[in-house]
Amino acid sequence: MGENGIRDDDDDEKVEVNIYPLNSYYFGSKEDAIPSKDHSLQRFKSNYDARGMRTCVEAVMMVELFKHPHLLLFQIKNSIFKLPGGRLRPGESDTDGLKRKLARKLSADENLAEWEVGECLGMWWRPDFETSMYPFLPPNVKHPKECTKLFLVRLPESRRFTVPKNMKLLSVPLCQIRDNHKTYGPIISAVPQLLSKFSFNMIGI
Amino acid sequence: MGENGIRDDDDDEKVEVNIYPLNSYYFGSKEDAIPSKDHSLQRFKSNYDARGMRTCVEAVMMVELFKHPHLLLFQIKNSIFKLPGGRLRPGESDTDGLKRKLARKLSADENLAEWEVGECLGMWWRPDFETSMYPFLPPNVKHPKECTKLFLVRLPESRRFTVPKNMKLLSVPLCQIRDNHKTYGPIISAVPQLLSKFSFNMIGI
Repeated sequence: MGENGIRDDDDDEKVEVNIYPLNSYYFGSKEDAIPSKDHSLQRFKSNYDARGMRTCVEAVMMVELFKHPHLLLFQIKNSIFKLPGGRLRPGESDTDGLKRKLARKLSADENLAEWEVGECLGMWWRPDFETSMYPFLPPNVKHPKECTKLFLVRLPESRRFTVPKNMKLLSVPLCQIRDNHKTYGPIISAVPQLLSKFSFNMIGI
Repeated sequence: MGENGIRDDDDDEKVEVNIYPLNSYYFGSKEDAIPSKDHSLQRFKSNYDARGMRTCVEAVMMVELFKHPHLLLFQIKNSIFKLPGGRLRPGESDTDGLKRKLARKLSADENLAEWEVGECLGMWWRPDFETSMYPFLPPNVKHPKECTKLFLVRLPESRRFTVPKNMKLLSVPLCQIRDNHKTYGPIISAVPQLLSKFSFNMIGI
C-alpha cells in the first residue's frame, strides 16, 4: 500500500498521470484565425447523407495550478467552451484525426509527433440531428447521427501552445467544472468523473 | 473499422463488455437479513480515529433487458439505492474486499471464486465527515475521511444471485439513471458516463 493509503492494487493499468504546472507551458498566438464552421442543421443533414455518422474526437489535457488539476479548454466568443479536437475525415483513425486537430489548433508548425493520444475516456452519442448527446446509445436507436469520443492526452513537462487568434485557451479547475452543466454542457461537466480513476502526480510542487 | 463504423483503434484495452439477458440469471433469497450498520457520525469519527480513512469498494454489474444495458442495484427500505459492495477491512486489498462483500451479499455459499473483479472505473472522496463526495480530492484536503472506488464486475453467462431477505436487487436501465442525482445520488447517477467508453455486446438477442 502506498504512503497515502490509496493504491494497493498490482494491476498494470496506467492509472497514474503526471501533470505539470501551468507556468511550465508557453502560450502564444497564431497569426491566423480558424474559420468557424457551418454549424447549420442543413449542413449536418447533408453531410450525414453523404458520409454517414459524424465522429468527433476531443482531447482531455491537464495542468496543475494551486495544487489542483485544471483542464485545458478553448473559449470562443467569450461564451462557448470546447475541448480541443474536431471531426474525423472519412476513414481517418481516432488517433490520427485527434493529432491532426491538435497540431492544427495548438502547434505552431503543425507537427503531429508532438502529441501523445492516450486511452479513450468516454463516448457520447447523438441519436438524432436535433437531440442532445447521451453517454450511451439510447434503446432502439439504430442509426446515431454523431459520436464524440474523449481521449486523455498526456502533456510533456514543457511545451509551447500556439492558439488561433480567434480563440482563447483557458485552464479551468476540475472543482469548477464538476456538475456545472449550465456553463460547460453535459460532456465537459462530466470530465471530472471520467478522470476520477486516475491518480494525478503533480510534478514540481 | 468495424461494421458499425465505431471501433477503429488497435489498442488492447478491454473496451468490450459482454452482457447477458436478465432472464439468464436466477434470483433467490437468503434466509438471513444482513443487519444494517451503525451509520452514525459518531461511529464514523471513532473508526477514523482508530483506523484512518474508510475505503469502500463497490461493483458495477450489468445485464441486458429490452436491448438496453441495465445496472444491478440494491434497494433498501423501498427508497435508498446502493451499488453492491462495502467497506474494506484494514489491510485488505480492493479486489479481495469486493469479492468478500459480493460473496456475502449475493452468493448462497459465499464462494469468492465466483466473482471476477475488473478495472477501476472511478474514485470518489469525502473530504470531511459531513461533506458530500467528490470525484477528485478537493484542493488543500490532506486527510480525506473516505474513498469509494467503483469496479467493473463482468458477469458470467448465467448464475444464481442470492439476496439477503431485507434487500431487493433491481436492474435499472442506464437511461433512467443518467443525471438522476435526486433518486440515485451523485455516484450512481454518474455510472453511465463512467461506462461510456465501453462497447456492450448484448449476447443472445
